[in-house]
Amino acid sequence: MNVNKEMFELGNHGSAIRELFEYGRKRKAEIGEDKVFDYSLGNPSIPAPDVVKDTLIDLLTNKEPTALHGYTSAAGDTNVRNSIAKYLNDTYKCNVDGNLIYMTCGAAASLTISLNAILNENEEVIVNAPFFPEYRVFTEKANGKLVILDADVPNFQIDFNKLEKLINKNTKAMIIDSPNNPSGAILKEEVIIKLAKLLKEKENEYNHPIYLISDEPYREIVYDKVNYPFVTNYYDDSIVCYSFSKSLSLPSDRIGYVLVNPKCNDAINVFKAICGAGRSLGFVCAPAMFQYMVPNCLGKTSDINIYKENRDVLYNNLKKMGYDVVHPDGAFYLFVKALEDDAKAFSAKALDYELLLVPSDSFGIKGYVRLSYCVDPDMVKRSLSAFEKLYNSYKK
Amino acid sequence: MNVNKEMFELGNHGSAIRELFEYGRKRKAEIGEDKVFDYSLGNPSIPAPDVVKDTLIDLLTNKEPTALHGYTSAAGDTNVRNSIAKYLNDTYKCNVDGNLIYMTCGAAASLTISLNAILNENEEVIVNAPFFPEYRVFTEKANGKLVILDADVPNFQIDFNKLEKLINKNTKAMIIDSPNNPSGAILKEEVIIKLAKLLKEKENEYNHPIYLISDEPYREIVYDKVNYPFVTNYYDDSIVCYSFSKSLSLPSDRIGYVLVNPKCNDAINVFKAICGAGRSLGFVCAPAMFQYMVPNCLGKTSDINIYKENRDVLYNNLKKMGYDVVHPDGAFYLFVKALEDDAKAFSAKALDYELLLVPSDSFGIKGYVRLSYCVDPDMVKRSLSAFEKLYNSYKK
Repeated sequence: MNVNKEMFELGNHGSAIRELFEYGRKRKAEIGEDKVFDYSLGNPSIPAPDVVKDTLIDLLTNKEPTALHGYTSAAGDTNVRNSIAKYLNDTYKCNVDGNLIYMTCGAAASLTISLNAILNENEEVIVNAPFFPEYRVFTEKANGKLVILDADVPNFQIDFNKLEKLINKNTKAMIIDSPNNPSGAILKEEVIIKLAKLLKEKENEYNHPIYLISDEPYREIVYDKVNYPFVTNYYDDSIVCYSFSKSLSLPSDRIGYVLVNPKCNDAINVFKAICGAGRSLGFVCAPAMFQYMVPNCLGKTSDINIYKENRDVLYNNLKKMGYDVVHPDGAFYLFVKALEDDAKAFSAKALDYELLLVPSDSFGIKGYVRLSYCVDPDMVKRSLSAFEKLYNSYKK
Repeated sequence: MNVNKEMFELGNHGSAIRELFEYGRKRKAEIGEDKVFDYSLGNPSIPAPDVVKDTLIDLLTNKEPTALHGYTSAAGDTNVRNSIAKYLNDTYKCNVDGNLIYMTCGAAASLTISLNAILNENEEVIVNAPFFPEYRVFTEKANGKLVILDADVPNFQIDFNKLEKLINKNTKAMIIDSPNNPSGAILKEEVIIKLAKLLKEKENEYNHPIYLISDEPYREIVYDKVNYPFVTNYYDDSIVCYSFSKSLSLPSDRIGYVLVNPKCNDAINVFKAICGAGRSLGFVCAPAMFQYMVPNCLGKTSDINIYKENRDVLYNNLKKMGYDVVHPDGAFYLFVKALEDDAKAFSAKALDYELLLVPSDSFGIKGYVRLSYCVDPDMVKRSLSAFEKLYNSYKK
């Protein structure tokens, strides 16, 4: 092997999610698009709201081309960053600052930039299972060590007894994502308050900051008017990673941001390290046309009623059949207990019924599967009998 | 310092180029836009060709939104990659393959992804001075060691005597950029042939590949019909890093690619490592709307006659005044010998005449300044008397 072995391994073995998705593509070509029930990928199925198209065409038509396509500063356009701060301050009654917002090429970039900015070799990052599997890839590439906090079953909040034991002098950060991928759970306000208290105590004990990185691409995809506690209001040393991919159905346009809480210890230095990390990873500036689109789109979403309908149909029917299902308050994932201990075996069995369900192992918990229900509602309805057959196959 | 110190330093001290550019912004606000002769930044001044706007509006109007904005595969859209391969094969009579093209968020991403893919700790990367200063940042972040090959003055080709002495068992790659930033020189075909021969000998001697990374964002910005030797035709273990930023005047839209030569030893593994590096650095897929734009724009450029006019006015007039100037065959930079040994002092002196010239030190060579002439032709003409005064100030 002449190339870098770790990079080769990452490229050679795609994520479990991507591999299932690729299987699905081939299978659809074999037996027909409508015969496969593809719950593998979190690729939004609802079109972007019209404001996206209208704003982009307006920019292309009316903004002077060298201004539209010319470099912005590395952190992003000042007006865009200020408009995001204003939106957040109005919406969450927080007190964030456009000068501490760094525009990024989406959520993955927000995370890699934040982790590379704060981590020194072998410092530890705690993730709350179930967690997005790429957290491991991003943390290890930033020379950090991923530490898994076991899932708080069945509520998918935070197991504080276990968390307290995991924090030590090497703990540099904790990542939370709420609404959670894959469970759809939203961390309750009292849980965030308790978490902030514990982290603050541990910061004092070890005499260094423990950054709370809140990865929240699903922040606007919340059902039933559930309250969303915005992390900077509760914990000073917090960093928010956001992407417009899911809320506006723009996953391939790569636009998001990192926000450093102004109350963060050393906020300006954290921000400078973020600028340095972005630079060294090869991010020159976030795609500018999509930056300029942002002010018109803040707080807007695709029509998430379709996701809600899918959630309700799946949740209610699977419960009725006898499945053990986590009730999701947000995002577009349903987390379902496998009908045998080995989720991979269960996922393989589901393929017999053309159901593509992602086994939970790579999310840091055993015995579940994830369904991405950002799909055509007709497919959801057509898939129900397959779920029934899958269930019955385990009764024999 | 609680954050990563290297990342902080990179964020705290912008590049010399960016710092001069920021100075210029302030100075323009003080004394007026038209009083400052800003040659600092390589931000294209000619509008993108109409085909860019037309294609983007067509995509926004006619492509189904979830397809337009949905994820492409990590390496990029297959049709786009194949169309690039076809264009290159037709233009350069090469034999490249769309399956070995990985779409990126621009040239910086092309380079960081390539370097992270191939480098192991402390392996060496040779750069041919003068070189783009971010090569150092990118190489060191990928755990490599940058080794500077002194400039081949006055022709800015390659000093083979020195190069031969620099190559050792730790040499993993060499980066060339032609047309060169900052000198505008194009490496001649006989130089590429000689380089390929030397690298091949050294590969055999050390029994491992030495990758030649050709960074060529200025490939289409070539004047006077100078021949452009395409590297995959001359050297097997070559990797091409490209960006549409300069040729199409789209620097902020972040679209480019990495191409692995199919004749590369281990080509498929190199490509997999590139996929892995992109993933771990936080690049999910290149901005898709700009991917889909590419097939319509291949081989097209902004109207580079304006750059050519600027080049001719500056080159001819500065020569006439007595400056020692490198004749640029491509790109939009003019490399001028400073009128004192210390280029930084010369650059500071030039500010007295409102001339923003980048000192060459960070490009790995002393005693020159770089002028980016991707600027308004009127500014060029207005600046001539300032150059004259600067010259005369050294005669006293």
